[in-house]
Amino acid sequence: MVDQLDIALQYAHKNNEKFLHSLKEILAIPSVSTEPEHASDIRKAAEWLASQLRSLGMQKVQIFPTAKHPVVYGEWLEALNAPVVLIYGHYDVQPADPLDLWKTGPFDPEVRGENIYARGASDMKGQDVIMLKAVESLVKSGGLPVNVKWLFEGEEEIGSPNLPAFITGHKELLAADFALNPDSGMIGKDYPTLTYALRGLAYFELRVFGPSQDLHSGIYGGVVHNPAIVLAELISGMHDSKGRITLSGFYDHVQKLSREDRDELARLPIDDKHFLDITGVPALYGEAGFTANERTGARPTLDVNGLLSGFTGEGSKTVIPAWAMAKISMRLVPDQDPNEVHQQLLQYLKEHAPRDVRWELTVMAGGPASISDRNNIGVRAMSKALETVWGIPPYFRREGGSIPVVKDMQSLLGIESVVSGFGLPDDNVHAPNEKMHLPTWYRGIDAAIHFFMNLKP
Amino acid sequence: MVDQLDIALQYAHKNNEKFLHSLKEILAIPSVSTEPEHASDIRKAAEWLASQLRSLGMQKVQIFPTAKHPVVYGEWLEALNAPVVLIYGHYDVQPADPLDLWKTGPFDPEVRGENIYARGASDMKGQDVIMLKAVESLVKSGGLPVNVKWLFEGEEEIGSPNLPAFITGHKELLAADFALNPDSGMIGKDYPTLTYALRGLAYFELRVFGPSQDLHSGIYGGVVHNPAIVLAELISGMHDSKGRITLSGFYDHVQKLSREDRDELARLPIDDKHFLDITGVPALYGEAGFTANERTGARPTLDVNGLLSGFTGEGSKTVIPAWAMAKISMRLVPDQDPNEVHQQLLQYLKEHAPRDVRWELTVMAGGPASISDRNNIGVRAMSKALETVWGIPPYFRREGGSIPVVKDMQSLLGIESVVSGFGLPDDNVHAPNEKMHLPTWYRGIDAAIHFFMNLKP
Repeated sequence: MVDQLDIALQYAHKNNEKFLHSLKEILAIPSVSTEPEHASDIRKAAEWLASQLRSLGMQKVQIFPTAKHPVVYGEWLEALNAPVVLIYGHYDVQPADPLDLWKTGPFDPEVRGENIYARGASDMKGQDVIMLKAVESLVKSGGLPVNVKWLFEGEEEIGSPNLPAFITGHKELLAADFALNPDSGMIGKDYPTLTYALRGLAYFELRVFGPSQDLHSGIYGGVVHNPAIVLAELISGMHDSKGRITLSGFYDHVQKLSREDRDELARLPIDDKHFLDITGVPALYGEAGFTANERTGARPTLDVNGLLSGFTGEGSKTVIPAWAMAKISMRLVPDQDPNEVHQQLLQYLKEHAPRDVRWELTVMAGGPASISDRNNIGVRAMSKALETVWGIPPYFRREGGSIPVVKDMQSLLGIESVVSGFGLPDDNVHAPNEKMHLPTWYRGIDAAIHFFMNLKP
Repeated sequence: MVDQLDIALQYAHKNNEKFLHSLKEILAIPSVSTEPEHASDIRKAAEWLASQLRSLGMQKVQIFPTAKHPVVYGEWLEALNAPVVLIYGHYDVQPADPLDLWKTGPFDPEVRGENIYARGASDMKGQDVIMLKAVESLVKSGGLPVNVKWLFEGEEEIGSPNLPAFITGHKELLAADFALNPDSGMIGKDYPTLTYALRGLAYFELRVFGPSQDLHSGIYGGVVHNPAIVLAELISGMHDSKGRITLSGFYDHVQKLSREDRDELARLPIDDKHFLDITGVPALYGEAGFTANERTGARPTLDVNGLLSGFTGEGSKTVIPAWAMAKISMRLVPDQDPNEVHQQLLQYLKEHAPRDVRWELTVMAGGPASISDRNNIGVRAMSKALETVWGIPPYFRREGGSIPVVKDMQSLLGIESVVSGFGLPDDNVHAPNEKMHLPTWYRGIDAAIHFFMNLKP
């Protein structure tokens, strides 16, 4: 007897070229959410998704406008007695610069060896297409065994400013038993992974203003406090010599790691050598007293994401810059509050910025950390699916990145998320030459088919 | 009886519109020495000067190639028993960016009110044209009363890398009694000024390298030392809490200020309010224990001239940057040696840069400070000329800026320089909307005519 599972898997394997073609279509759309000039590309990507949903027989397919970038919705609710899965995805991508470091155009997807290269290949258009194609395989082989709702947003890479309001305004439409969020990744291509904790984010832009315009450093060097130096001094004071963040109260609400947490993190097949190899740094760095896995998964961090001031071209220009700018962001862990962190940073600046400059702090993005219940039916279905395809049970890990929507689904819709995904650590997400490993991508489609079948009542 | 002085001054006053037209011609040439794409403009500016010299009846007019930008030379040596004045000028200018802050194009000279606006109007094409037009006025009114040699370089704004070699290779050609260097300025439009001390310069580019490419700050935040933060920490450590530079040995050879030096600097008609007004900073800053005039004129300083790292566009991008760059320069005073300062900075970086990053330090430009003899015949002739035109004796000051060629003329040709000029403190040199005050410019031509006449045997 041939069952639906086999037919669906066969359909997927037969159509692997067609699936790849679909992936290339969406990867070719430069839907960069942070750059206003890409607004029409954002719209194009939303329309591409809506047309995919319609071709899968989804109902109520709609592009909802928001204050910035639209949300794409669709649903199919005809599987009697089966759970409702809310499938989350985002169709926006990070900016592609620095462009000169890309081997091929970031929006000209190209297969080289086992990988496809393009901005968004891994984060997360590749994951979106995995779910679309798994559902297509089931629709074409007898019908979906579960009920699904789709929610694609276009603002994830800018901190989802309008998603919470959209969710709040559409609670009934989005009601589900749990959410599926494939915006995380795997520890390595042979290590299927489920993420049960995510760090939060608090992202700021700090500007320090000195003289009313750039000054000649010969004539005025000695009477004005150089804003680039003031900025450097402010940044410098944000860590102590043990790699701890110095903002007053910053660690007050940080959840302590239990013995069990630490044991589990120690079992992950990731060690210092892995981090050294993948980052290329001469030596690792971080908060004293914690392992690399603890520091990236379960401890908060503070990074400077960008610096700009004065003359940055070739050669020399002897100016005292009028201003200096830093992008500064913190990764947060349970139970830190991004708004409290904002207040702590403001307080730090009030205490430490000298009175011979002016400064401005702008909140750019933010969201709290989250921890999921590892025993919901979705996690169990995904765990079994991953074990079937990879032959080993998945690793449960805490991830360093931030998926604020997971917390929003918990607090606004009251549902847990299955956080997984098929990106790899060397996918260059947020960097030049982002890629997706194609054998893993195809395994991902198989795993998603198993996942939906595992949910059949 | 009408003497030559009166005729020359009348010629200058009658031709003021024509003189202004000449100034506009040279200001319209974007001879930016630091940007390779302007090489042909550099050539154009050199040719413009050569043709001016020829039209003044100068001999041996020649454009000498160097390893980078050419030197323009010309001479007239027929004034019997009169001294030989080597007139120095530079025809290159600073880059014009940020362009959006200019009210009119930096190379579309425009007169607004009493000023002419263009890059180089004050620093120093305006000064070059003053000397050309003063000489023209004398040539047209009976002939030059002194012997002159002209030396125009095209590399001043990039630290004159090829000028010392040119001077060394042409010692006989350049032999003179003293040099005239109008590349300094005035304390204010009513205060004629002679500069007797100049600070030196040591300009560096420091790059800190972390991961082999930009990393996702969520996934890797906690294991790599952020190069932008390391750079900030290194910069932060370069000053102590009293505004002193911390490089080991940095002050060892700094000449102490004598009681006389301090008294003289205290007499300058420049106070803290002047610096506050002109810079627009909320409060002044500087090394404890010294006045503003001492700090800008007679004490060394360290400034950051530029910062660049990671994502600097609109919005937020959660990267750990692969590298971070700072342009760092010091203004030096007698008897600091730029090469020693380079070694001190290297030593500082070796001691303070953490081993989890790589770094590179590049020397961009440098030259020692200088102090001139205030009693040479040139200084006396200029002092008298300024007093005649302005009605008060000139102020003698130490200037914060660097004119390494003054030191080179001393050490390579054995001659002193008369360092003066007619730029004003609010001329926005090295900044957007650079300007020259035209009434002062015309007074400068008169003063230069007096200066040459004062040298007549």
